[in-house]
Amino acid sequence: MNASSDRPVIAVDAMGGDHGPAVVVPGAVAALTPDSPFGLALYGDADAVGAELAKLGTERLPVSVVPCTQDIDMGESPAAAIRGRPDSPIVKALTDHKAGRAAAVVSAGSTGAQVAASLIVLGRLPGVDRPAIATVIPTAEGRLLLLDAGANTQCKPEHLVCFARMGAVYARELFGVAEPAVGLLNIGGEARKGNELSVAAHELLRGAGLNFKGNVEGNEFLLGPADVVVTDGFTGNNTLKLVEGIARFLVALSRRPDLADHERAAFRPVLGYLQREFSYEVAGGAMLLGVAGVSIIAHGRSSARAITNAVKVAWEQVDADLPAKVAAALA
Amino acid sequence: MNASSDRPVIAVDAMGGDHGPAVVVPGAVAALTPDSPFGLALYGDADAVGAELAKLGTERLPVSVVPCTQDIDMGESPAAAIRGRPDSPIVKALTDHKAGRAAAVVSAGSTGAQVAASLIVLGRLPGVDRPAIATVIPTAEGRLLLLDAGANTQCKPEHLVCFARMGAVYARELFGVAEPAVGLLNIGGEARKGNELSVAAHELLRGAGLNFKGNVEGNEFLLGPADVVVTDGFTGNNTLKLVEGIARFLVALSRRPDLADHERAAFRPVLGYLQREFSYEVAGGAMLLGVAGVSIIAHGRSSARAITNAVKVAWEQVDADLPAKVAAALA
Repeated sequence: MNASSDRPVIAVDAMGGDHGPAVVVPGAVAALTPDSPFGLALYGDADAVGAELAKLGTERLPVSVVPCTQDIDMGESPAAAIRGRPDSPIVKALTDHKAGRAAAVVSAGSTGAQVAASLIVLGRLPGVDRPAIATVIPTAEGRLLLLDAGANTQCKPEHLVCFARMGAVYARELFGVAEPAVGLLNIGGEARKGNELSVAAHELLRGAGLNFKGNVEGNEFLLGPADVVVTDGFTGNNTLKLVEGIARFLVALSRRPDLADHERAAFRPVLGYLQREFSYEVAGGAMLLGVAGVSIIAHGRSSARAITNAVKVAWEQVDADLPAKVAAALA
Repeated sequence: MNASSDRPVIAVDAMGGDHGPAVVVPGAVAALTPDSPFGLALYGDADAVGAELAKLGTERLPVSVVPCTQDIDMGESPAAAIRGRPDSPIVKALTDHKAGRAAAVVSAGSTGAQVAASLIVLGRLPGVDRPAIATVIPTAEGRLLLLDAGANTQCKPEHLVCFARMGAVYARELFGVAEPAVGLLNIGGEARKGNELSVAAHELLRGAGLNFKGNVEGNEFLLGPADVVVTDGFTGNNTLKLVEGIARFLVALSRRPDLADHERAAFRPVLGYLQREFSYEVAGGAMLLGVAGVSIIAHGRSSARAITNAVKVAWEQVDADLPAKVAAALA
């Protein structure tokens, strides 16, 4: 255990997710090698986390435990829960990130608590009124960044412009696209189509100095019509969940009694391919863009592999100095 | 040509859709037999429609042509276009429906024009503030009715309650479900989740005397979580288009160069199954629920088979006396 060396440390909420330390600890540790450019700090119950670490060979790896004595209780209002639980893993990890003792935070715990705690503890970047959840969606052509995927259920047109600017920085820095194409998720191709929000946002996006490609419709969304697709958090979260549901739908179909034998047999490799290339495990996590730090939101159902990828995603953002670049673009 | 017999007549806009009379005329006529309980009236350019009819053997079928001399130009505002084009197929067909000379209208033309013309010519049923586009979505378990699929991009909570009442009547009469389960499309399971509209609508739906099952999330939507799923027209249209896009996504995937040979081969029967069971052609059309009549909205890309099914759907609704039953439920 030598996370006290000079390398940056990624703080991981070891208690989060449906499976807790038994999955998070081995998943996070699998992202490390003895000469990793970053170390890990695992936040949680010292006994539970220590027991999982003891099962792994971590002597030469840069990993430490930060004991926490509290839990977040989401029965309370998020703000009250967070202010009353300074020694819970998510609040303590974010506090250490704010103080410079950690370079990023990863959690598979409650998304609502993580968003609220990130806003309260890290604060917003200058120029950001509403941080957004951004999530990488694999498409038939590659990938796109969808935002807001659920942080803000009510948005104003100018919020969507801010989402577009932040998403464009992400796509430039992490997808390596020089001038990312930005699309507005909408229900028609013409500028006047949509609801009040999307019509007004379309107009603002046209004048925002971005590489704005216009409206993107649901039936082309998974073909990869743009590098960045913006919408309000209600529409974005519904869209993300519909996309996540495709695999469940195909699994259910593959069990229908009306299938011919050759059709039933064919579903297996198709589902295997989707699982391999399009699972949430590959993307590794969503992130909260617009806060003063790196806050990675892993899926509540995360497998060890998904946690591994979420830690790698956190490091990529730290390595790219993403929050500073988002701040510079919004200044 | 004996549509002047006693049987009810379904009015078809023969000029609508991407392919016009060449597809609509044979598609509609294929819904007929010499002893059909209904006849067809084909509205459109007499020469163009007559030429298509002449290619078919229609001597013993109850089909007639209603010549129209105008077109709808959607460059204008819909209301102006409709009021200025009384002899366009959609306006003339709806006018004849209103006057009792036709029992229903089917069009694959502009959805916006059909919705506007239906509202203007047929009017609303008593108790209906906002008619909604309802569309049948095939699910892994069966089917559900989604509304509003695009007529009202801005909704109030009480509109969603009206959509639920209308949808429940449809599901009872045409799905044959005694007490249809109603769900609210939302981004979380709990009552307090969602945007302002969905939180308020959840509360109203709980007290509406319906078989309300609570919130339905996108990742379970295609599994068939309820018989009727209600949402605003923006969310509903985006949802419908995302579902329509699944097939396009899978087709694009099946062409990716990274596929193994056995994976590529497997896509074909899976896509064939989806095409056979889940195509819009099977459902045959959306409908405008809440107007004083039967107005069936066929897909703009409709094939002849889709038009055939849309005509059959129209007849089912006429035969079930659906508008009167919706009106009774809302009285």
